Amino acid sequence: MPSRYLSFRCSVPWLILFLETLFLIRFFFRFPGVGDIYSPSNFYPEFQDVNHMVVFGFGFFLMVLRRYGFSSTGLNFLLIVLGVQCSVLVEDLLIFVFLSCSLAKAVVSMTAVAISTGAVLGKANPVQLIVMSLVELIVFYVSRCINRTFLQVPDHLTLMHVHLFGAYFGVAVTSRFPEPPPGLDKNRSTPKSDLFSMLGTVFVWVFWPSFNSILADSKDQAVLNTYFALAVSAVAAFMLSALTSKDGKFRMTHIHSAVLAGGVTVSYTAHSIQHPWIAMILGLLGSVITILGSHCLQRCFNPAFKLQDTSGVHFTFGLPAVLGAVAAVVLCVVEKGISTQWNNLSSLGYLILVDVGAFCQTISTALVTGLITGFILNIKLLKTVHVSKYFDDQFYWEVSF
Amino acid sequence: MPSRYLSFRCSVPWLILFLETLFLIRFFFRFPGVGDIYSPSNFYPEFQDVNHMVVFGFGFFLMVLRRYGFSSTGLNFLLIVLGVQCSVLVEDLLIFVFLSCSLAKAVVSMTAVAISTGAVLGKANPVQLIVMSLVELIVFYVSRCINRTFLQVPDHLTLMHVHLFGAYFGVAVTSRFPEPPPGLDKNRSTPKSDLFSMLGTVFVWVFWPSFNSILADSKDQAVLNTYFALAVSAVAAFMLSALTSKDGKFRMTHIHSAVLAGGVTVSYTAHSIQHPWIAMILGLLGSVITILGSHCLQRCFNPAFKLQDTSGVHFTFGLPAVLGAVAAVVLCVVEKGISTQWNNLSSLGYLILVDVGAFCQTISTALVTGLITGFILNIKLLKTVHVSKYFDDQFYWEVSF
Amino acid sequence: MPSRYLSFRCSVPWLILFLETLFLIRFFFRFPGVGDIYSPSNFYPEFQDVNHMVVFGFGFFLMVLRRYGFSSTGLNFLLIVLGVQCSVLVEDLLIFVFLSCSLAKAVVSMTAVAISTGAVLGKANPVQLIVMSLVELIVFYVSRCINRTFLQVPDHLTLMHVHLFGAYFGVAVTSRFPEPPPGLDKNRSTPKSDLFSMLGTVFVWVFWPSFNSILADSKDQAVLNTYFALAVSAVAAFMLSALTSKDGKFRMTHIHSAVLAGGVTVSYTAHSIQHPWIAMILGLLGSVITILGSHCLQRCFNPAFKLQDTSGVHFTFGLPAVLGAVAAVVLCVVEKGISTQWNNLSSLGYLILVDVGAFCQTISTALVTGLITGFILNIKLLKTVHVSKYFDDQFYWEVSF
Repeated sequence: MPSRYLSFRCSVPWLILFLETLFLIRFFFRFPGVGDIYSPSNFYPEFQDVNHMVVFGFGFFLMVLRRYGFSSTGLNFLLIVLGVQCSVLVEDLLIFVFLSCSLAKAVVSMTAVAISTGAVLGKANPVQLIVMSLVELIVFYVSRCINRTFLQVPDHLTLMHVHLFGAYFGVAVTSRFPEPPPGLDKNRSTPKSDLFSMLGTVFVWVFWPSFNSILADSKDQAVLNTYFALAVSAVAAFMLSALTSKDGKFRMTHIHSAVLAGGVTVSYTAHSIQHPWIAMILGLLGSVITILGSHCLQRCFNPAFKLQDTSGVHFTFGLPAVLGAVAAVVLCVVEKGISTQWNNLSSLGYLILVDVGAFCQTISTALVTGLITGFILNIKLLKTVHVSKYFDDQFYWEVSF
Repeated sequence: MPSRYLSFRCSVPWLILFLETLFLIRFFFRFPGVGDIYSPSNFYPEFQDVNHMVVFGFGFFLMVLRRYGFSSTGLNFLLIVLGVQCSVLVEDLLIFVFLSCSLAKAVVSMTAVAISTGAVLGKANPVQLIVMSLVELIVFYVSRCINRTFLQVPDHLTLMHVHLFGAYFGVAVTSRFPEPPPGLDKNRSTPKSDLFSMLGTVFVWVFWPSFNSILADSKDQAVLNTYFALAVSAVAAFMLSALTSKDGKFRMTHIHSAVLAGGVTVSYTAHSIQHPWIAMILGLLGSVITILGSHCLQRCFNPAFKLQDTSGVHFTFGLPAVLGAVAAVVLCVVEKGISTQWNNLSSLGYLILVDVGAFCQTISTALVTGLITGFILNIKLLKTVHVSKYFDDQFYWEVSF
Repeated sequence: MPSRYLSFRCSVPWLILFLETLFLIRFFFRFPGVGDIYSPSNFYPEFQDVNHMVVFGFGFFLMVLRRYGFSSTGLNFLLIVLGVQCSVLVEDLLIFVFLSCSLAKAVVSMTAVAISTGAVLGKANPVQLIVMSLVELIVFYVSRCINRTFLQVPDHLTLMHVHLFGAYFGVAVTSRFPEPPPGLDKNRSTPKSDLFSMLGTVFVWVFWPSFNSILADSKDQAVLNTYFALAVSAVAAFMLSALTSKDGKFRMTHIHSAVLAGGVTVSYTAHSIQHPWIAMILGLLGSVITILGSHCLQRCFNPAFKLQDTSGVHFTFGLPAVLGAVAAVVLCVVEKGISTQWNNLSSLGYLILVDVGAFCQTISTALVTGLITGFILNIKLLKTVHVSKYFDDQFYWEVSF
């Protein structure tokens, strides 16, 4: 093992310095006004919640590997703070599309990066992670632009594609990384790491209503629907975990992923659902698709495509987001249909076309750019980590025992 | 050990599914309006605090046993989300009594369940816990109804009986469970579990002012009094712990329970106390009664009644709540007495009668229904856990080391 | 080892009881009105954040030693709750200077104590810590009085000297404690303690914008500038840690201290900086000075003065605060100079004089009184801990393994 594989001294700091200088120069010449950046007025409490959720919640949510705690929480922190600055700039560059540029939206966008990080957790080194997160952010903004400009999707809905985009981008990237050897012990969890992960999960769960309501017009409704969807999906998570696992025991990974499924599923529709029971049904379906998905994907899909999705973002965020997008189309069509008594079918068809178009555009952009990013990340220049060195803090951190 | 003792596959999921279906059907036919359910307007920040406190704080507060971390936090989570839905429904059924039905009150009511869970921690299996929490919730609402209808106690005060009810219900239930064998090692804590428990305790402590003020009219006063009561009881907890333990060392269990005593003690009176020094005295007395109680109960009361109160809810929540109820009567009488110059003694007597009546009704309902619930929980049908299997995650969770 | 070195039963409880009685008597005779104590109206959410940050965040931030977890978080909790009550009283006594007395300011002042505790972490026993924190609080108020009365510094700026004062007071106190023997193993961290410390750090980081804006007039600007300064200093922390450590790996202690440097550096100026890029530059410089300082201080300064600053408060809070104070003077002078076109140089000189005067007065008061306190703490009466017993929970807590 030549030492050049290990030392990031010549790459990480200089990459970060370069980026930070870029940001500073850009901020020096043009910074969005304080009024703009605070676009939802009286925004601080919700921003605080979402910031807490992304920095703290996801940081500890990802702490599932036994020897990867420092990197899970530390590198997530690094990517978020780097990404928020980048995000403000990108949004500012595209201001002719989005009309406003807000810190809250920048933090919400970072969820995509946090989710994708989960897919390559323990396999990508810091340089690869930084490159990946910047590419992902920019592509996500471009994808939002397309949805906004060509398909006239409202701004806050384009942002809610964040889970879908993050999950499928992450899955596409991780499919380009070599598989770890089967006997590797380090990609399992310990009770301690599971407890820390539970801690993060509960944080994300508690703050999710703030996340779904931060850009909504009818905040109260968004909070209420999200809360009930989350509650039902948490209940269903325990139910399905006991049903599908051996001996009827609960499995921690099921709980971690499925309690959040409800929040992802209603993210498109939380502000518009009139009856909480619809949100509850969506939460239930989200949980079902997550837990069934986790079994199907891990047994059939992942081995077939030789991909390893370390913290299971495909079924935790990807599948519920697909379900949510479908549900959004159905609910929207039913609502419009009822209000026009199914007379104006062509307008309904157009509506379906737009929504399905936005969905397909987002997911295909995520997959294609994810694959390309995966290829780029695995070139020699970025110092790929050898498979035997996966899932270990010791290559990135000074660890003392 | 026959395997039928272990597998919950045939019970837990179906019980949860049945309940969830029931909730969904009920919500489908009649859901309280969004306006109702948000009854304290602008309620989100306080609701968020209380939700965080109940889901996260109590979940980690209960993590005192060395091998029961998953269940402490996971099952608490399950019971809360199941109970909140049940609570909204029950409140909605009893709407002729309570006039409004709010999500905030539903979450506050769940504290009773979280407290009772602490008493049977490690001894009850998931089926028993679910049955217990539903019975408890319904009985608590009935008890509140009685206080509200027959004794004319204001709504937010009936809700503050939640600690009293939860603690004595839990103690009565746990008295029906067989005692663990004396040599058992698993019902002790480790430094790691104590740290997680400390983490939860500090969360509960920090959010307690939100809890006591969520339904109060004079929020500022309620926050201020609660904060000072909590501060004094935290200080007194350290003082008394060093005084009563061997070698003058602090004992973690003392700290866990006594720092919260102040919050429980002033819960009845936080909104009405005019002088913070009264709240401080109550906080001090709450801490004293908790720590002295912990010694007396563990040495005399518990062995005599052969009950084992795993996380000490009797002295953590029960005794301070009794003290708080007595203090509420005394303060109310003194205040009225001074304002009427002790002329109208019959009205004072009536006042005392009502308050004492509400207290006695609550505590006796809790004890009697708790005992009955304890009997019901220990029938064969609910798959009682054998004593030697107490306090162990492995019977409910897939644990990998 | 005679047992009298170990038992605190005859000192800790009685000292606490004496103080608590004093507070109660004082509160009984005169308590600041509820209106006063809530001086920033609508203060609860920010107060909650700062309270959470000080009690929870700093408690876990300090958990860096392998066998000192209980004391780090438990004693921090004790000192905060004791200090808040003391602080309200002291502020009330000095009300002719400060005009108002608020709970929010009392909690902010406690940061000084939490910081100083970090310097003597594991070396001072509970009695010494209580005495130190009370002396420090009183001296800090006196120092603020001098700044307020003689130098006409605005109230919220005198409060922002809290980091400077806390760090240098702590350094001066710790210099009077004997050094631990070189072979001692207990003053290192383990991955577990580092994770808990990371948890606390992230909390402090997330709530820092609330801390810097709690007393500011232009809250939005203070939040925005603080957020960007924190983001840049977090990014720079990772960059510099990889640059300065062996093999280009990240070092956890660097991350812990340097991510917070930005918040400290802009604390004086967050409310007045017009362009976020200035805050970002300050955050960057704060991070640089922290990490370079950590190397210089630990290699040259600390051995030369034979002081051991356990959790590195000198470079975590002291150096960035010095930088922030200098930056405040420079920014103020430049702004005034530009607005008056550098015509009114004598007024500029006066301005510099006042700011530099306040800075020098604060730091010299902190150092001198810190040294005196250090001497007092090491007299026999206060039961100094023997060097071989440093950094160990077992002397203050009943620990079961």
